[in-house]
Amino acid sequence: MTKSRMEAFSDGVIAVIITILVLELKVPREPTLAALVPVAPVFLSYVLSFVFLGIYWSNHHHLIQVVEHVSGPVLWANLHLLFWLSLTPFVTNWMGENHLAAWPVALYGTVLLFAAIAYFILAKVLISLHGADSVLATALGSDFKGKISMVIYLVAVPLAFVNSWFSCGLYVLVAIMWLVPDRRIERTLI
Amino acid sequence: MTKSRMEAFSDGVIAVIITILVLELKVPREPTLAALVPVAPVFLSYVLSFVFLGIYWSNHHHLIQVVEHVSGPVLWANLHLLFWLSLTPFVTNWMGENHLAAWPVALYGTVLLFAAIAYFILAKVLISLHGADSVLATALGSDFKGKISMVIYLVAVPLAFVNSWFSCGLYVLVAIMWLVPDRRIERTLI
Amino acid sequence: MTKSRMEAFSDGVIAVIITILVLELKVPREPTLAALVPVAPVFLSYVLSFVFLGIYWSNHHHLIQVVEHVSGPVLWANLHLLFWLSLTPFVTNWMGENHLAAWPVALYGTVLLFAAIAYFILAKVLISLHGADSVLATALGSDFKGKISMVIYLVAVPLAFVNSWFSCGLYVLVAIMWLVPDRRIERTLI
Amino acid sequence: MTKSRMEAFSDGVIAVIITILVLELKVPREPTLAALVPVAPVFLSYVLSFVFLGIYWSNHHHLIQVVEHVSGPVLWANLHLLFWLSLTPFVTNWMGENHLAAWPVALYGTVLLFAAIAYFILAKVLISLHGADSVLATALGSDFKGKISMVIYLVAVPLAFVNSWFSCGLYVLVAIMWLVPDRRIERTLI
Repeated sequence: MTKSRMEAFSDGVIAVIITILVLELKVPREPTLAALVPVAPVFLSYVLSFVFLGIYWSNHHHLIQVVEHVSGPVLWANLHLLFWLSLTPFVTNWMGENHLAAWPVALYGTVLLFAAIAYFILAKVLISLHGADSVLATALGSDFKGKISMVIYLVAVPLAFVNSWFSCGLYVLVAIMWLVPDRRIERTLI
Repeated sequence: MTKSRMEAFSDGVIAVIITILVLELKVPREPTLAALVPVAPVFLSYVLSFVFLGIYWSNHHHLIQVVEHVSGPVLWANLHLLFWLSLTPFVTNWMGENHLAAWPVALYGTVLLFAAIAYFILAKVLISLHGADSVLATALGSDFKGKISMVIYLVAVPLAFVNSWFSCGLYVLVAIMWLVPDRRIERTLI
Repeated sequence: MTKSRMEAFSDGVIAVIITILVLELKVPREPTLAALVPVAPVFLSYVLSFVFLGIYWSNHHHLIQVVEHVSGPVLWANLHLLFWLSLTPFVTNWMGENHLAAWPVALYGTVLLFAAIAYFILAKVLISLHGADSVLATALGSDFKGKISMVIYLVAVPLAFVNSWFSCGLYVLVAIMWLVPDRRIERTLI
Repeated sequence: MTKSRMEAFSDGVIAVIITILVLELKVPREPTLAALVPVAPVFLSYVLSFVFLGIYWSNHHHLIQVVEHVSGPVLWANLHLLFWLSLTPFVTNWMGENHLAAWPVALYGTVLLFAAIAYFILAKVLISLHGADSVLATALGSDFKGKISMVIYLVAVPLAFVNSWFSCGLYVLVAIMWLVPDRRIERTLI
């Protein structure tokens, strides 16, 4: 089974998610700078989610590049990842409209955590399909970044009930950590 | 006529449908756990529809893989399938917002039934184009799962007026039945 | 310049248009059959627009198939077509919510007319690029269906102010006329 | 790393942006011509943004065509461009609904300016990857149009607080300047 349609479908879903995020930015009625102020926290949530979706798309791109073939379970592991990503607009909006209240920030982190787990599962299913000595397995290595991200989310979610700014700081930290592109796969291919 | 654009268009439409489903999840105003409770039934409907659309995409992917060429009638049989799938967000939302009231649950099942019929027609049109001894015809075989699904929907729709929980149980049953990936085609290709 | 990205972009835009059409179907509050009744005219408009967009996609698919290369003007003639198609959700909704009042029906026909003109221009630009003795020019022939469609729209638009049911009848007539797939190109290729 | 998925993803995102723009056109309640009048300024903003997105898609298409390979930084420079383009529906709507008030017009120009800068960065990253004597570098040349566009935006944004019609006139001027397709690359390839 070829991977091309899985790529195309994932690109389509992530493209739509990243774009409908902006529909949550409600246009203010007044044409003044003051009217833009309440939009600001929603906008910042939007930027954060845009970056996270960009990271997932970029990593997905790197990952699937070293994939040679796919199977039924791979398609479903991929759909599972897309499911969690599809919840991003909902939690982004809830967090943005409530000025970083505890529950929305915790739920945002929970969705990020499950997306990270789904990505981890997808990588595992792909490795078990390609073998432990495949280019894919070598390229992914110990997946340190993926594991540390999950740990940070696990800390950040309960922390939201103490201080939601700390949680958001941790989400931004994970984003920055991943913004350094996934050179592991690029390096292995050279 | 090549199949690539039909694949790309179907991927696009299903990707958009699966993603705009989430737009129906209305963000609660209050940043509390209690405010999330009314969203729960809509969320469960969302999960069910996400799984159904995932099943259709996955089966479509398997089906089109053994297709060698397409024709005008194939394009329209495919558009007919996409038409019924495009109604999913509407019925999902109506069902979710009305806590499994009879009519919405029956209409949900009706849309699933027509989507199943449309998939059946698409397969038939493709088989008549490729011949009864083609790889495609062999791979599809007697299409037992497709036929039993239609029978279950036919039972579940009127049952919604007796007890809508039974109908939903039957929808979930069909989803589980299909979540086992369509190995028929994979097996034939080996 | 290759045609692949123009195909992909057109597929994407038409896929989104055809899918966001359904967002106009407002979910009724009551879970009763009676509550669905006011949705019916919007639904019928939806079906009509779905069919028209399906026709455009299918014809675009046939047309681009015989195209060998594209140019800057072709990209813009294509964007011009997509512009008129992108107005479909707006006019569909206006027509559906106003029970076939004169102005919405006339505007609906006007958008169809401009889309037909845009398709005509796209075909002309492509023919002038490929030459009058190309496969493309032979395949399109005199484009009788395209011309008669434009004439019917020109009649149907003012007719909306006399009797909007006649106009809608004419729109349905054009749709039926095109539902017979564009065998000209298929025939030429054999 | 191949460019195909970056193309597909960009096509998807721009296709969704260009299509959800039309969701901002709120359907009037009354089926009269008078009811359409308040939609007119939003419609004109829509046309302007459609043209700008068409220009970006067309130029992106020309640019990526001469690209031979991509890298992590290229993916992010591309996502950065898509980010600014994704803000188009928000600013288009704000400008259209406020009859060209100063702040919305200035913000619209600011988004255009940042999109232009992002495109400029993307081109620079691609040139540094391909080398100063590559086909890409030759094709782009001095990028006069890109630079003059940025200067015009820099003038138009503060001008909105003097007379927003002048600013809009300048935006239209830039659009017209780019509507002449980017023959530089086409010319270089011949």
